Parts: sequence; C-alpha cells; structure tokens
Amino acid sequence: MIRVAIIGASGYTGAESIEIILRHREAEVVYLSALPEECGAVWAVFPQFKGRCGLQIEPLDFDKLKGKADAALCCLPHKVSMGFVPQLLDLGLKVIDFSADYRLKDTIVYEKFYEVKHTDKINLEKAVYGLPEFFREKIKEADLVANPGCYPTGALLAAAPLLKEKLVETDSIIVNAVTGISGAGRNPSEKFHFPNMNENLFAYGIGTHRHMPEMEQIATEIAGADVQILFQPHAGPFDRGILSTVYCQPKGKTGGDQLSNLYSDFYAGEPFVQICSEAPAVKDVAGTNYCHIFPTFVKGKIVVFSAIDNLVKGASGQAVQNMNIIFGLEETLGLK
Amino acid sequence: MIRVAIIGASGYTGAESIEIILRHREAEVVYLSALPEECGAVWAVFPQFKGRCGLQIEPLDFDKLKGKADAALCCLPHKVSMGFVPQLLDLGLKVIDFSADYRLKDTIVYEKFYEVKHTDKINLEKAVYGLPEFFREKIKEADLVANPGCYPTGALLAAAPLLKEKLVETDSIIVNAVTGISGAGRNPSEKFHFPNMNENLFAYGIGTHRHMPEMEQIATEIAGADVQILFQPHAGPFDRGILSTVYCQPKGKTGGDQLSNLYSDFYAGEPFVQICSEAPAVKDVAGTNYCHIFPTFVKGKIVVFSAIDNLVKGASGQAVQNMNIIFGLEETLGLK
Amino acid sequence: MIRVAIIGASGYTGAESIEIILRHREAEVVYLSALPEECGAVWAVFPQFKGRCGLQIEPLDFDKLKGKADAALCCLPHKVSMGFVPQLLDLGLKVIDFSADYRLKDTIVYEKFYEVKHTDKINLEKAVYGLPEFFREKIKEADLVANPGCYPTGALLAAAPLLKEKLVETDSIIVNAVTGISGAGRNPSEKFHFPNMNENLFAYGIGTHRHMPEMEQIATEIAGADVQILFQPHAGPFDRGILSTVYCQPKGKTGGDQLSNLYSDFYAGEPFVQICSEAPAVKDVAGTNYCHIFPTFVKGKIVVFSAIDNLVKGASGQAVQNMNIIFGLEETLGLK
Amino acid sequence: MIRVAIIGASGYTGAESIEIILRHREAEVVYLSALPEECGAVWAVFPQFKGRCGLQIEPLDFDKLKGKADAALCCLPHKVSMGFVPQLLDLGLKVIDFSADYRLKDTIVYEKFYEVKHTDKINLEKAVYGLPEFFREKIKEADLVANPGCYPTGALLAAAPLLKEKLVETDSIIVNAVTGISGAGRNPSEKFHFPNMNENLFAYGIGTHRHMPEMEQIATEIAGADVQILFQPHAGPFDRGILSTVYCQPKGKTGGDQLSNLYSDFYAGEPFVQICSEAPAVKDVAGTNYCHIFPTFVKGKIVVFSAIDNLVKGASGQAVQNMNIIFGLEETLGLK
Repeated sequence: MIRVAIIGASGYTGAESIEIILRHREAEVVYLSALPEECGAVWAVFPQFKGRCGLQIEPLDFDKLKGKADAALCCLPHKVSMGFVPQLLDLGLKVIDFSADYRLKDTIVYEKFYEVKHTDKINLEKAVYGLPEFFREKIKEADLVANPGCYPTGALLAAAPLLKEKLVETDSIIVNAVTGISGAGRNPSEKFHFPNMNENLFAYGIGTHRHMPEMEQIATEIAGADVQILFQPHAGPFDRGILSTVYCQPKGKTGGDQLSNLYSDFYAGEPFVQICSEAPAVKDVAGTNYCHIFPTFVKGKIVVFSAIDNLVKGASGQAVQNMNIIFGLEETLGLK
Repeated sequence: MIRVAIIGASGYTGAESIEIILRHREAEVVYLSALPEECGAVWAVFPQFKGRCGLQIEPLDFDKLKGKADAALCCLPHKVSMGFVPQLLDLGLKVIDFSADYRLKDTIVYEKFYEVKHTDKINLEKAVYGLPEFFREKIKEADLVANPGCYPTGALLAAAPLLKEKLVETDSIIVNAVTGISGAGRNPSEKFHFPNMNENLFAYGIGTHRHMPEMEQIATEIAGADVQILFQPHAGPFDRGILSTVYCQPKGKTGGDQLSNLYSDFYAGEPFVQICSEAPAVKDVAGTNYCHIFPTFVKGKIVVFSAIDNLVKGASGQAVQNMNIIFGLEETLGLK
Repeated sequence: MIRVAIIGASGYTGAESIEIILRHREAEVVYLSALPEECGAVWAVFPQFKGRCGLQIEPLDFDKLKGKADAALCCLPHKVSMGFVPQLLDLGLKVIDFSADYRLKDTIVYEKFYEVKHTDKINLEKAVYGLPEFFREKIKEADLVANPGCYPTGALLAAAPLLKEKLVETDSIIVNAVTGISGAGRNPSEKFHFPNMNENLFAYGIGTHRHMPEMEQIATEIAGADVQILFQPHAGPFDRGILSTVYCQPKGKTGGDQLSNLYSDFYAGEPFVQICSEAPAVKDVAGTNYCHIFPTFVKGKIVVFSAIDNLVKGASGQAVQNMNIIFGLEETLGLK
Repeated sequence: MIRVAIIGASGYTGAESIEIILRHREAEVVYLSALPEECGAVWAVFPQFKGRCGLQIEPLDFDKLKGKADAALCCLPHKVSMGFVPQLLDLGLKVIDFSADYRLKDTIVYEKFYEVKHTDKINLEKAVYGLPEFFREKIKEADLVANPGCYPTGALLAAAPLLKEKLVETDSIIVNAVTGISGAGRNPSEKFHFPNMNENLFAYGIGTHRHMPEMEQIATEIAGADVQILFQPHAGPFDRGILSTVYCQPKGKTGGDQLSNLYSDFYAGEPFVQICSEAPAVKDVAGTNYCHIFPTFVKGKIVVFSAIDNLVKGASGQAVQNMNIIFGLEETLGLK
C-alpha cells in the first residue's frame, strides 16, 4: 500500500484526491493537512466523507509526517507550494505538486506571470512535467512531479499530435476554452456567487491567463519549435469540465480520415485519451480521468475539440496517475 | 410622474426595483443611495443598466434628497432600516420599507428573532403591512408601508382563504417552502458559492427562521384566532422563485370543486393572484408580480401550492404595487 | 468474480449500474441487453464508457445468457419487468429487480396504481424487499429482490426509527420530497426539456404517486400498525438526489438529544446511513450510496430530513448492496 | 396602437414576442396562430400569461386575420415560413419574418444549407435584412423584414466595425460562440433533455451551421469585400444568451484605446449597442434587447466579445425594434 499524505487538503483538489484514493486498491490516505482555520475531522470539512474517512485534517507538522507516508499530493496554492515542497522532498517523499511553482522552467516568465520571486530553483530544475502521455519515462524516475494545469492538459492533449507531426503553423494557434466553476477554487467571491454565476457565461483572463505560458512551454517542447498560443478562457455555469476548441492553420493538405487516424495512432495504447468521431461533451468525462478528443477540418482550418474534467484529468486524477507511474503500479489504478 | 428614491440600491432588491420602475409609465427613479464602497454609476454596479439608466448610486445625503422625491423604496437590511426611515418620513416621503423592522407589531417577538432593540416604535405603530390583497384600504392612507417578507407573501396568499373562512385547524399548519438563491442576497458566502450550491438542495433556518413569526402574526390577524405555523424553508439551485407547499387539517368536509371555487371567489378581482387547476411552477411566475395558487385535497388534508418570484411579488414588485396604491395610480402599472 | 447481467441497460439506472460494477473488485459486467433500437456498443450509447467498457448492448437472448451470469440487475420499467423475471429466475440467476412489480405485496393495490394485471404472483410472494437496513437477513436467502423505489428509500430510512419505536402517530405522517431529474428517466419530454425544467421547481403526482402505497406497506410492516402517509413529491433543477422532509406528530415527549441518540443507536453499524447534526444536503450524497439523516423537533413536531442519491442508494447502488449481501460479499464492495 | 398578429405563436420566440408587446405602449397583440394541436388559450399553452393575456391561439385563418392587424410577426420555422408570408403580405400586413427564408439572397446557398427549393423568390428580393444598426433606412421602407438569426446578430455587431473600417483580414475570421438552450426551440429532444444537457457543454453544427452563410453574406455586404468566417457554435447549460468570441487578424497596427474609441464612435447613438471596458457577461443582457461588446488586442490578434439574449436581440426584441422602425415609432418602445 502506498501511503499518501495530502498537503492542502481543504480545497476542491484535496477533496477530489481523497475521493480517488478511497477507491484505490493499492494506496491509502494517511495524513491530511491544511491551514489551522480549515482543520477538523475530514467529514466535518467535507460532509461527503461521513462514514467513509475518519481522518483529521491537521496543521502541517513535518515531524508527525516523517516516516508516515510514501507520497505527498501537494495541493497548496501557487507561490505557497515552493515554500513547503523542499521539506517534503527532504522527508524522502515522492511529491506531486499541483501548483504552478514547478511547471515553468523559465523563472523570468514565472516571475512575470506570478509576480513573485521563485525561491526553489534547485528543485524546479529537477521537476518533471506530469503529463504522462508525453513524459511517462521521466515521470518514472522523478522525485518531484509538477502536475499540469487543467487548461494546459486539455489544450495540449488536443494540439500535441499536430505539433509533433509538424502539420500546423506554430505561430497562430488559438485555444478557446470554457471551464466549470470548481476550477475557481473553494473561496467564495462575487463573480462566482450562485445568483451571479448561474445562467451566466463570460470570458476572463484576457491575454493574461497564467496557463498561456505553460501551454506554450510544453507545446514548444513537443513541437521542437517555438509555439505561440492565443489562449482565451471562459467560465460557464457548471461544476466540472473544460471544453477546449483549438483552431490551427494546417501547413499542407490532409484529409479528414487521415486526421482521425493520425490521432488514433498517436494515442494508441494511452488508457485515458479517447478519439471520438463527433464533438465531445464535458458531461461524458465529468468525474473521470478521461480526455475525449475530436479533430476535424473546417473551412481550411483544423479544429480540435477536447473535453476533460478539470478536477480529475486536470488535477487530482492526473496526480494519482503520476503517482501510480512513479511507484510502478498499474497506471489506471483508482482511475478506471 | 412619481419621483422615486431607492435607498440601499446596491443589492438585488434595489436592482429589481430600478428594473421595474424603468418600465413604469408614471414613475421614475431620481435618486439612488448605498454604502460608500458600493457607490458609482448604476451601470458600473449593475452592468445590465448600461445605456438604460445614467444615474449615480451615491452615499445617502438627506439634504440632497430633500424635495427631490415623492417616494422612497427603502431596501436596507433588517436593523439598519429603522435608523433611516424616520428621517425619510420627516422629509415628507411615502416610504415602502423592505426590511422586517416595521412588520412585527410585537417588539418582544422582534427583539427575540432579530436580536436587537427596536428603536423606532412610534413609526412601527403607524406602519401598514403591505400585502395589498388583504390591507389595500389601509395602504391607501399609509405613509409607511412594511413590505412583506418573500416567504410570508407566498405562504399567506396560499393559506389565507382557508383561515379567513375558518375551514382549517389553526394549530397545525405546515409551510414547506423552497426558495431560489437570489433570496440570500448579494453578499458571497460559502453556502452559496456556485460549486457548493449548484446541483444542491437543503433545508435551513430549522425552527428559527424569522419569517415564521411574521407569518403567524398576519395569519392570526386574518383568521381572527391564534395561528401556529411550522415553517420550514429550503434553498434550491435556481435564481428566482419560492414554491410553498402548505399542509392544513380541514375542520369539516369540503369537496375539491368547492375548494377551487372558494379560492377563485376569494381572489376575484385581484390582478396578481391566479388560481390554477394544476400544480404551479416557479418558472411561470419568475420575473412577474404574479402568485399562482393551486388548492387541493390529499388524503384528508388540504394541500395548497403557491409560486411567486421572491424578488418581484416577494419584494420589489409588491413594493411598486404598494406605491401605486398609495399614490392612487392604477395598481398594476409597471407590473403587468 | 460475480458475473452480472444488466437487463434494460440503456437507461440511467443501467448506466449507473455499469459505472458501479466497473469499480467493484469482485463483480464484473458480462452481459447487457436493451430494446433493439437502443442496442450497440455500450460506449456508443453512453459515451462516458469509451475506453472503459467494451461490451455490446444487445437484444435480450435467454439462450445466450444461459450459464453466462450469476446475477441479473433487471432495470426494466414497471409492468415490463414481470414479463422477464420468471425466465431470469429459471436460468438460475439471482435477480435484483428495479421495477415496482415485486414490491407491492397486495396485488389489488398494485393493479390500482399501475393499472395493469399482475402476471407473476408466484414470484411476487417470494420476493424480498431490498432495503438492507431492515431486511438484510431475508435478502441473504433471496433469489429475487425487489429493489426499493427511490422515494421510499429516502422516506423510510428517515421515518423508520420513529415508527419502530412507536414514538409518533401513524395516521398523519407527511413526506415532502424534492427529486433531481435523473429520476424521470432518459426519455425526453416537454416537462423535462432543458429550457422548461432549468430554473424551475414544481409539485407533481399530487395524491397519486405510486411510491405512496409502497412507503405505506413497508412503514406498516416496520411499525407493526397501519401507517398512513401523505407523500408529496416535487421536481427540482438538478441531476441527482432526493431530499425528504418528513413531518411527524410525536406521541409523547422526547428531547432533542434523545432523538439524535435514538437515531445513532438505531443505525449503529449500518455502513450507509449517517446521522448528522445539521440539515443534510443532496450534493453531499450525490454519487454515493449514503443516506444522511437529521432528526429534530420543531414546534411540537418531529421533523426528519434525509438525503440520498436517487440513482445510487435509490436504485443501482442499493441493488449492488443487495447483490453483495446475496453472494456473501462484503456489503460495501464497490460502494465505499 | 399598432395591431400585431403573431403567426406561429406556440414556440419560445412567439411567447417572447407576446411578453414584449404586453409592455409596449403603442402596440397590442390582436391575433395568435399555431398548428391546431398547439392551440388553446394562450395562458393554457404558456402559464406565465395567466391573468395577463386573454387571447386564444388558433389555427391560422387568413379570412379572420384580414383587416384585423397592421403587422405580423411570423415565427414559423424555416421552410414553412415562405409558404405563408406571401399571403400575409397580400393582406397588406407589414411582415417581420423570423425564419431564414428571406435572409439568404443567394437561393443556391439557401437551397444547399436548407435542403429545399425556395418557393418565394419574388418576396425574397424585396426583403430587407433586419439588423437596424446597419439597414435602418431600408427597414423604414420595407414591407417584409427578414429578422436576423441569433448568432449572426451577435457576431455581426461584434465584427462589423472592423470590417467596415477595413482593419482586419477578411479571409480568416473565427467566430466561436456559446448559446443557451432556448435557442434550440421548444421541442423536446435527447440532447436537450434536462439530465443530459444540465452540467454539460459541447460543440455542434461543426462546419455546417446554417448561420455561417448568413453571417458571411451580411459581413461581405458590410465589408464591401468577400468575407470568410469559420463559425463554431456550442451549446451551454443556461436558458438565454449568446456569447460570441470573435478572433480577427489585424491588417495594420492599431492600439487598444483606438479600438475602444473606434467602437464607441461607430455605435454612437445606437440605443441597443453598448461598448464595455471589460468582458461582457450573458447574464447582463438576458431579458434585454442590448448587445454588450468588448474589443481588445491579444497576442497580435483582435478579439471581440459580444453578448446578446438570443430570444430578444437575437429574435423577438429585434423584431419589435424593426416593427417600431417600420411604423415610425420611437425605436426603443417596449424594449428599454
């Protein structure tokens, strides 16, 4: 049994991680921590765990944690995470970090978009980007995995085959995405107050969303050439899911069937990526670790649609997938 | 033209009042006030008014207000309202107050449920309860109208014919109601954060809701006998509407047709009360000042269903209806 | 491995059953049937199973089914089910039937509410009502389990302790319930067309809902005395969950703490019933097999709130719980 | 008083038209028709009109209609409309037609996208496209107005200033839009069954949506040059509204402030078009005839966001706006 500590367990990704590991045959949650004001019995913080999990969420205490766990899912916010990850690694834990702190290799970009100095460049260098479909071999060897952002997961899985196969222009990719509101986290705000968000839809983060440089970095790595992405997120009135609609300019001529075959071949053997023959729907992937993709041609452009659950394949599910890989378990455990 | 000031314009009932008066042929909004931190152009606070209303919401200034308006819709919260209403009355304004401060005639009950001393007993005595279907004649003469609570409006319109005609036991009425979330006001909170409230439904205010004594006071007045009501509110995942399901123990035997006729006769001539021949739906009254009612017999009990929009017939619409009555206008102006 | 056939797999309870068994360590789906026009690859009918389940849904063929399965989850509609269950039993399968056909022991009541002759009275007599919290011992021995209706499950778990302990009057119980729309099944209709149902709430089945006699039969059995229930269902704008608000007249005097202790003791050891100290919320039980219950006193009445997921504890989850019991497996397998 | 007949009154745009005209000071609904199976008292078909409108919806009868009305809002479906419009015109009515039958000037394109022969080319030639912001002068003189599609309205208002001023490439415009489900009409279907559509979001009409040629025709007319548009619609879980996100390639260099000023100047005096300084939200325009637009630069592209209510500015509101223009009334009557 892999013993898992969840650091920052009082948010939605913390709860989703608990939920997944409760169903995992070879892992168990052994430790939960959060800010003091968010501590208490896990079922008092999240009533859905009444009768299912008897643990306490407690203030983080490295002495208590020592020797108790094999892996840490670190669900702390951006900027906070890099203050704790070094000590988690020092305890000998394998760390899967949900924040952006170990995703952007270029600290100048990080510091521009996150407006804070990076304080852990040593571990940043060693961190592996946790998108198993592209970096599985490195993840196997990693002590620290930077779990991808939710938007980059959906967008990269959609665009990667085209980039890798050099089928599209790399300077004009548009990613138009709509997310459910669990992506905004558990803190109440005016925008996401029910009577404001219900029956609503709007764009946000125009030209400034922090997932844009993350997408570009990984896309560039996959393409082997500089990739520029116009990423435009929107928020919609539902809990879970991201639908990405990706518009690309093809370089040459490829037919519709070829495109579908290209994607099916590219992701052959990938358990969590499914190529569809029609537009994917977020509800079909909600609550699962799957990504549904449909690539097609429209008016001379290639348009690729992808759907994921932002809390699962976009966060906690992918983290458990990464954990399974690191510990040599069957990759789909707890996630099928 | 009736010139209307809206005091406490930055909440949902303030916005709904503006919306209604914009469509009113013989009234116009002339003044809007709110707490300093909620001031600004009305379209900056509520973008739905862009191009439709050019007023500023400004901090309340009695000197500025003097002579400027004929009526005040006072949308301040409970406990705050009674600090301002006396001065509004001193300015010679007809005041329709949305708070509970002038609804409960018994200040002991008020002070128990609202946990604050009542500071304006003089005006409390003069205030008229603004349920036009029952107190129209008094409203005509009133300087100060206590606009009813949303739940009492729905429940009283449903139960009143039975109480008035002494057809049911008065010690065992159950009002089970479900409200949309606009009823919770504009301040964000954990319970009403979109990902918590969406796809959710729960009871609240168990045995303690402040609308219970209000219902009982007016029901007692209508029945001419002490009425006890077990009122149980619930919150559901929609914006607008209250569905009340009222369970009563009949005293004698009455048939189904008689019940329907009783209600139709009772509310004959009432423009905003409609007796239905099947269960009413909140969506059919959303955005309107109407109350849809269906009374029936089930297993020896009388069950009455009523639906209103909590922001319209349950607040701003009823306030404008009261204003129309006070000023001798056609009662339905702005509300049809 | 228990080999499970799902008969009538093309509806929501069929899909939910597949979902649950996919996560079950000691059971596997081996056969899926539906009407010919609803057949095809399971992932074509339900895209959420893409990559997760490779089975075909096929027209029911008893020859093919013979020897292939150990248990049948029969998700056919009322009236249809009793035409197929005898043959499923003849094949030696343990049958958990989701319809009402084997729930009502009194065929006169059945024929009145379902408006059809009962055609399988032999098996009706042998069928065990599958509410494990009350009939576990009989379920262990059963060949045919009548899986309870969703509303009766929520209402009975809420009211049973009071009935069993003879604490309340049995002639005046009111069950006011609100269900999510998955309860209405997968066939499109005007009432449940998205733009009609969204932002809506209404009562239905007034005095005529078929779950009323089912509740009364089991409540009477538990109470050991005739129980009359006024059951009033409502439909609300969410997918999953039933919130039941049960109003009872206490016989004697019991205090609030006693009530809570009574419930905790009564359900001690029951894995799926949790007694809460505040109002339960449907979202906390959505997607789980749990029932959250909060009993309390309000104005001289006992009010009990219960929340379940209509598709899980109210259908497929309870069916798997019953299956686990029949086959001597750990009762919570696949359901924790 | 303008006397208005609504032909095809039993759908959502029919109901919305009634709703708007009920509030219109100088127009009244005098006649309502629908298919025989959808006839009856208007409040029986649409309970929201109980007590507000006493008309009957009746089978279309030209003899009865003769001399009774001044204007017809023709809410019939595509392909059906052109069978009735000639007779409505023969009766001397001004006709505002909601279908696509009189929008596409090129009948070859019409016949390709609507898969039916055009049977009224004479009136097609005379019909004026009812987008008042661009064709107001022609509308004044028109007997027949082709009321624009909902998507074209939102997209064209967003893109037109750029096209008219020749600021962007005309061969690479992308319109990514999300609509609420009232846009799908009142007929139930599997896709829009509440439990399927709720919590869902998906693309549809990929490369084939009929509003694409309509957008291109009008965009070409405005630009004075051939315009190619990749239009990709999506459906989201809300009732009303279309959010269009329009991506364009600028020809030269223009700054952000210039863009905002350009739009403000371009639409100066337009009562229903509002230029915003941040992303518009569909909820802010829901229930209104307004279009909120925000143009900006992102990564070298111009991105324009626009929000409308598909049933109001995208259908019935725009129709009333057109009617007001034709009859020389104040353009905003009934719509402010």
